[in-house]
Amino acid sequence: MRPIVTLLTDFGLADSYVAEMKAAIFTEAADIRIVDLSHLVPPGDLRSAQYLLGRAWRRFPVGTVNVVVVDPGVGSRRRAIAVRHHGHFFVGPDNGVFSAVLDGADVVELRVPKDASPTFHGRDVFTPAAARLALGEPFQGLGPTVRDPITLPSPQLRVQGGVAEGEVIYLDHFGTLITNVPGEKIAGATAIEVGGVAIGPLLRTYADVESGKLVALVGSEGLMQVAVRDGSAGARLGVGVGARVIVTLDA
Amino acid sequence: MRPIVTLLTDFGLADSYVAEMKAAIFTEAADIRIVDLSHLVPPGDLRSAQYLLGRAWRRFPVGTVNVVVVDPGVGSRRRAIAVRHHGHFFVGPDNGVFSAVLDGADVVELRVPKDASPTFHGRDVFTPAAARLALGEPFQGLGPTVRDPITLPSPQLRVQGGVAEGEVIYLDHFGTLITNVPGEKIAGATAIEVGGVAIGPLLRTYADVESGKLVALVGSEGLMQVAVRDGSAGARLGVGVGARVIVTLDA
Amino acid sequence: MRPIVTLLTDFGLADSYVAEMKAAIFTEAADIRIVDLSHLVPPGDLRSAQYLLGRAWRRFPVGTVNVVVVDPGVGSRRRAIAVRHHGHFFVGPDNGVFSAVLDGADVVELRVPKDASPTFHGRDVFTPAAARLALGEPFQGLGPTVRDPITLPSPQLRVQGGVAEGEVIYLDHFGTLITNVPGEKIAGATAIEVGGVAIGPLLRTYADVESGKLVALVGSEGLMQVAVRDGSAGARLGVGVGARVIVTLDA
Repeated sequence: MRPIVTLLTDFGLADSYVAEMKAAIFTEAADIRIVDLSHLVPPGDLRSAQYLLGRAWRRFPVGTVNVVVVDPGVGSRRRAIAVRHHGHFFVGPDNGVFSAVLDGADVVELRVPKDASPTFHGRDVFTPAAARLALGEPFQGLGPTVRDPITLPSPQLRVQGGVAEGEVIYLDHFGTLITNVPGEKIAGATAIEVGGVAIGPLLRTYADVESGKLVALVGSEGLMQVAVRDGSAGARLGVGVGARVIVTLDA
Repeated sequence: MRPIVTLLTDFGLADSYVAEMKAAIFTEAADIRIVDLSHLVPPGDLRSAQYLLGRAWRRFPVGTVNVVVVDPGVGSRRRAIAVRHHGHFFVGPDNGVFSAVLDGADVVELRVPKDASPTFHGRDVFTPAAARLALGEPFQGLGPTVRDPITLPSPQLRVQGGVAEGEVIYLDHFGTLITNVPGEKIAGATAIEVGGVAIGPLLRTYADVESGKLVALVGSEGLMQVAVRDGSAGARLGVGVGARVIVTLDA
Repeated sequence: MRPIVTLLTDFGLADSYVAEMKAAIFTEAADIRIVDLSHLVPPGDLRSAQYLLGRAWRRFPVGTVNVVVVDPGVGSRRRAIAVRHHGHFFVGPDNGVFSAVLDGADVVELRVPKDASPTFHGRDVFTPAAARLALGEPFQGLGPTVRDPITLPSPQLRVQGGVAEGEVIYLDHFGTLITNVPGEKIAGATAIEVGGVAIGPLLRTYADVESGKLVALVGSEGLMQVAVRDGSAGARLGVGVGARVIVTLDA
């Protein structure tokens, strides 16, 4: 069976842009399965796109082709690239959105067809390349090797002297604040603070507190998060992406 | 051809949660068709989930596996279950969301793998079980029989003395108020009142009134509803789920 | 491989209506690929539906069946129709939403089954007909020929005396104002005005201006559009669909 192509964009769901990308895929290859990763990335928000891609790509089978179109520089001199990382493929703009999968990866620059719209490489450059990869076209045949892909700085994380300091990296649909503090670093947490507010001990799941209470736990991607049971932690604490997180560890 | 798996959640469309569930399905079974029932159930709203599931499941072919993840008690002692009802399957939490399909059904408790995230059974418990059902694994092999699944009380409905009394059970995207009063009970309706407002006679379709006017009719699932043509009845009447509905019947 | 069926509706994404249409398709034909064009057309907005359909249909392979359910007159005397235009198919209400594909097209009236819900022809009339077309049923067998399908007036466009005058026909997710002025008519544009505001010269892509600045360019469907880089032109100019557009051309 053909590999899966996933789509992650900031295109929203009202317009025809996502369907036009799917048409481009089906025109190249009728029997490809397409999975919408999300199309509600806030416009141009590379950090949210990185978080969502980082959660999802490793759960798909080897060979899956992940297309990311969060691309405010479309049509400028920024390169269009494809990345091969542990057998998974990534296609999109060279703007840092693939920073987390560049380590040890192969990267090539995609050719931009003469008739590609300068405002819609998602349809005219990225999805056609993704479809060709899914059809088995050799990766290196897509274009010349890129040795210096753009990388973005990682969110701050420091673990030393019995304290882990990080930040909120994502706010989800439920209002849960996802941090960059890995669960395995904070097994002996004695105090947790987000945006200056003490949260309480590290628990296991939302139902470990009463409805309406704050709870800190290790989320399903392995990172510490802060939630309000049956409510929104983002609204409760009045903080969002970038807020400071401090975890005091057992001596 | 493999059965269909449908997904009904309160996960929203911005995050990667739905895609991670699809990855879990495709990892077990590459050739399964997945249909999104809805992912915009209000967080934790079991009654809306029940209404949407009740409308949709019987329209899919026998053998379809319906996964519901409206699950505020995830990771607590609430059981994870699978239900077989007239050849259709249902997988999700034992929190009452399946009340309407438990009559005469077989119910089993799903095993929760040791490495399942305590906050994401949708990905780590329910969809893997759904994929195995779709692959033809025997239902009884999923786990031990459950004899006392949780049921939720039905919305109030009373038909006697020439009056049907019920309530609004769902507010849809158009602002239409769906009630629990079955169309076949009110053929001789002479007066209809919702939230204390008289609506007018029972008509056949929206276009039977002028633009902007209230209209009561029997909706496409067989229940009485109140709409505003080219507008929102919820906004017009200022009422929502739980509002009282009174239909006076022909003597 | 079976043709694709696309779905364009104003049903939103919260309810079960879209899933019920997919169930109707899969009940007729298990192996059809379904693509959501959009379900967020503003309720009853035939002009937005026309724009989205017009962008998307020609990008899908010949034989694709496009179902449109923006249908405020459902259940009234308005006809249900199917259209064949250059090998592409269209199914939906005869309310003008197909105006742009009627030229040289064949049109037939669909039979409405006795048990069809008068409020949900999307599920009970249009998708079953679309599935039969996708299965290869002859087009003319769907019903009697229609010689006078409804057409809607096109948005105003006048090019003469060195001036092109048109209007905004769509506002997209990014707040970009799409006009009906074709790019090939305005190669020599010297001044561009939308809603009374001067925009600047015609450029190639968003990144040709600084962040936060207005930019006019030819979009990926060939029409002039006005955007704000990393922002919303609709919000900046305070205008929307119907706003006047004036392009002064080179002498």
